[in-house]
Amino acid sequence: MNKQQLVETIKRKRSFLCVGLDTDIKKIPEHLLKEEDPVFAFNKAIIDATADLCIAYKPNLAFYESLGVKGWIAFEKTVTYIKKNYPDQFIIADAKRGDIGNTSEMYARSFFDELNIDAVTVAPYMGEDSVKPFLLYPEKWVILLALTSNKGSHDFQLAADANGERLFEKVLRKSQKWANDEQMMYVVGATQGKMFTNIRKIAPNHFLLVPGVGAQGGSLEEVCKYGLNSDCGLIVNSSRAIIYADKTDKFAEAARKAAQEIQQDMAGKVESCKLYAQKK
Amino acid sequence: MNKQQLVETIKRKRSFLCVGLDTDIKKIPEHLLKEEDPVFAFNKAIIDATADLCIAYKPNLAFYESLGVKGWIAFEKTVTYIKKNYPDQFIIADAKRGDIGNTSEMYARSFFDELNIDAVTVAPYMGEDSVKPFLLYPEKWVILLALTSNKGSHDFQLAADANGERLFEKVLRKSQKWANDEQMMYVVGATQGKMFTNIRKIAPNHFLLVPGVGAQGGSLEEVCKYGLNSDCGLIVNSSRAIIYADKTDKFAEAARKAAQEIQQDMAGKVESCKLYAQKK
Repeated sequence: MNKQQLVETIKRKRSFLCVGLDTDIKKIPEHLLKEEDPVFAFNKAIIDATADLCIAYKPNLAFYESLGVKGWIAFEKTVTYIKKNYPDQFIIADAKRGDIGNTSEMYARSFFDELNIDAVTVAPYMGEDSVKPFLLYPEKWVILLALTSNKGSHDFQLAADANGERLFEKVLRKSQKWANDEQMMYVVGATQGKMFTNIRKIAPNHFLLVPGVGAQGGSLEEVCKYGLNSDCGLIVNSSRAIIYADKTDKFAEAARKAAQEIQQDMAGKVESCKLYAQKK
Repeated sequence: MNKQQLVETIKRKRSFLCVGLDTDIKKIPEHLLKEEDPVFAFNKAIIDATADLCIAYKPNLAFYESLGVKGWIAFEKTVTYIKKNYPDQFIIADAKRGDIGNTSEMYARSFFDELNIDAVTVAPYMGEDSVKPFLLYPEKWVILLALTSNKGSHDFQLAADANGERLFEKVLRKSQKWANDEQMMYVVGATQGKMFTNIRKIAPNHFLLVPGVGAQGGSLEEVCKYGLNSDCGLIVNSSRAIIYADKTDKFAEAARKAAQEIQQDMAGKVESCKLYAQKK
């Protein structure tokens, strides 16, 4: 999916919500455990209940890998199901990969070629040649970790060099030499509040993938105040607050309700992007 | 496997060689493609041909994931085969994972609980809470990326802060507060030469996992000169130079020969560790 298509979907659906499919077999409603593939059954129900309210799904690979082969099957079935039934959805493999060139090539082949996923999250620690193999696929995206939502983001990402440039700022600046905003996005945690202002100075036009609203405590209001741009420029993820809104057999309806509340908040924000666009 | 057991294996086998199982279905001998599981058939032959010469195997997850479900099956079969037939081998899942706490927990569960792997490579970018869930398993190891073997290692890892401390040094120092040398190792590329001297100043007792000897151009001589300690303290990986030493039906014998040459070089180095130990 290219940037224009993504922006159009956001405007049409008045939503920039991404539903995180962090599906933990230990947390799904008990009645699903008798299904042949409980994880896929759960995902399918969540997807059918939320697809008109969100513009992206983000399965987190860890949750699937923890089940080994079965998990991998559930992951592939989930991706195929979304692609077939909801082709306007942007699919993000939350994998946080990044390795030497020949290895990153294998990951890129896996996610983009074999599975036709739209975007992969990538860790920047190993630098340019670990990221570039993901950039060889047209209309596919790298979402590079910049400033994450967790407490540990303070350990290294905020360390400043002699010129006062912090590591996440260095990542934002350097990586813009590798690809433009048609192929790269950045992960910025919703918990980072006013830091969005700094980030928008360095990367005014890029989409930001924003985890951390909901269970992790980030505020949509603040993220939008400092992070929106004229294309919207935000994909805000919520995982646990939506998919585990209820743990009975009404889980899908509860997930829909939770997603709807966020989407309703977002509708007004999408409208306000037009103001940014007019100011341009 | 605990540190003492690892050191004893190194001394007994006079080897600190790790064979990297970066098995690419596009590169394995053609006659294997008619096997039911070509990747596992290749790995099994390589393992049987090299197990007495090396002390560790390091399957690189990317190569398995690129085949989807089939790849994951081959990966699990490989791990199970090693554990059953060569229980003195240290198994490293080269995964370079690292995510927020609840996600890292899932990865840890996957590798340590489900698969009983000894060590996982982890990326430090997201800080302490992304690493800690891997440290909850006794006699299991985190191998944290410090200074990698690729060109992109210069992009961020060598960036110095206002006090002149480089990022990889900050990673080495900070992470020692999270775990000691009985649970943590570091990845340091063989291509980094004299940097091993700096690293040994900060982490004198830790094991270092050293990729980049062979196809990537690192020198075993130099790595040992600056990196050995009294426990040996090195696990040197070679992947392509061993597993693809020959691409005919004699590939396993050729792999054995390539591994043997490295092991013979290593035997003398292991002897020299005793000198370090006596100096202590």
